Amino acid sequence: MKTYLECIPCFMYQAYRTATIATDDESKIKKVLDDVGEMIKNIPMDKTPPEIGNIVYQKIREITGNNDPYSKIKAANINEALELYPKLKEIIKNSDDSLLTAIRIAIAGNVIDLGVQKEFNIKEDIQKILKQEFAVFNYDEFKTHLEKAKSILYLGDNAGESVFDRLLIEEINKPVVFAVREIPVINDCIIQDAIDSGIDKVAEIISSGSTAPATILSLCNPEFLEKFKNADLVISKGQGNYEGLSEESRSVFFMLKAKCKVIARNLNVNEDDIVLKGINLN
Amino acid sequence: MKTYLECIPCFMYQAYRTATIATDDESKIKKVLDDVGEMIKNIPMDKTPPEIGNIVYQKIREITGNNDPYSKIKAANINEALELYPKLKEIIKNSDDSLLTAIRIAIAGNVIDLGVQKEFNIKEDIQKILKQEFAVFNYDEFKTHLEKAKSILYLGDNAGESVFDRLLIEEINKPVVFAVREIPVINDCIIQDAIDSGIDKVAEIISSGSTAPATILSLCNPEFLEKFKNADLVISKGQGNYEGLSEESRSVFFMLKAKCKVIARNLNVNEDDIVLKGINLN
Repeated sequence: MKTYLECIPCFMYQAYRTATIATDDESKIKKVLDDVGEMIKNIPMDKTPPEIGNIVYQKIREITGNNDPYSKIKAANINEALELYPKLKEIIKNSDDSLLTAIRIAIAGNVIDLGVQKEFNIKEDIQKILKQEFAVFNYDEFKTHLEKAKSILYLGDNAGESVFDRLLIEEINKPVVFAVREIPVINDCIIQDAIDSGIDKVAEIISSGSTAPATILSLCNPEFLEKFKNADLVISKGQGNYEGLSEESRSVFFMLKAKCKVIARNLNVNEDDIVLKGINLN
Repeated sequence: MKTYLECIPCFMYQAYRTATIATDDESKIKKVLDDVGEMIKNIPMDKTPPEIGNIVYQKIREITGNNDPYSKIKAANINEALELYPKLKEIIKNSDDSLLTAIRIAIAGNVIDLGVQKEFNIKEDIQKILKQEFAVFNYDEFKTHLEKAKSILYLGDNAGESVFDRLLIEEINKPVVFAVREIPVINDCIIQDAIDSGIDKVAEIISSGSTAPATILSLCNPEFLEKFKNADLVISKGQGNYEGLSEESRSVFFMLKAKCKVIARNLNVNEDDIVLKGINLN
């Protein structure tokens, strides 16, 4: 997905928010805003938003000297999700269609996103998403692909959401490789977060190599690229991964909640809609 | 009120929104964002936010060639407010404290503000604000000053809100001068909007001379400055006028709804609180 003009004020807002979490030094926060402001005229608008985000968050790390401003928030979100885990496991077990319920819960986890201008309440969001209609619902296609798949690559998104991904991986009950970001960026899941979420008990965890808040193939490492090319099924969680991969040529199933107007427009759905969308399925 | 770091992403958002209303030409919208982005490093943070806004909106006019992007929206807001006028007049007439009810309604009108990142529903907002507690409530002081006042200067804010101001001016029933912006900026009231709101029937209308979305004394004309200095009572509506005048040395009564975190913090109230605050009352 290309970058839209509307993404530009959002980059500035993200830069402000993250810089403020990264440091109390107002001169450093101002320097982040100055530099991101100056960057705007050179933004390659044909690149995806997370590719621009990669540059913005790199600048924040350089200027503030803080390489992981969201570490405490990520740990708290993982712990909150782990507390919900037994109850959610029960809900999945007792539902008529346990795979679909696990998908809904994995999408509900996608509200734990600190890169968008939305507040969330994970318990309320789960209740809502358990009943919400899908705006795009390629579930039959997903089941067909899943049934045939011997190797599954699952692209993680945010820390905390990863606990909900674990529930879906347990429900899938096939060999899964769970890919995460190379370094901390916003509240995205890295290897340690995936381990803290218990993913190591149910899947192989690898780094995609991407330093952007998304899977950007040009930033990924050879091991990941090999798996991305050869996996029978790719499950891609969240907005960033969709932005990064929506124009790739292999089959991918995207699971996400459309959390901003730009992505909703790109997907031809409404803001806050939930989506299970497959591309290149033939 | 000085400009806070948090105002910077908001300027970028305002620039995007107004440029998008002003033109369909994406290259011009991008140029606005480029130029505002480049401006950030030179923002004099000790100036008030509307002084920075003055530069931002000037740039939008220059680049898009559209001097009044909000004209249709302003006309629609005035018409909607005029339709509510008879009902609101009745509510004021039938209330126990008609002056206070008129103040509440004038503050409710302050939600018609297209410079902030909030949506509004004027009918619902009126119902809410008619019952809402004031977070700052210098009503006794206001009544004392009003009783003694022979000349009143009323600083208008947004078009549409002006119809609600008219209701308060009618309730005050003393000679009032109603001051508006010199040129269209966001959806702020200019002379024609005040006339369209029926203010000419109840007050003398003048331009303050300010081209900013606020009363900025350094931008005002001599006629206005004379009235600002000598009026027995100054009533200042809205956030922009507060930002511009909160540190002046004469007595002013501010009536507003705190529509963003920055102004709420400055006023030591919560976001969405309503305020009737007097300064320099001795």
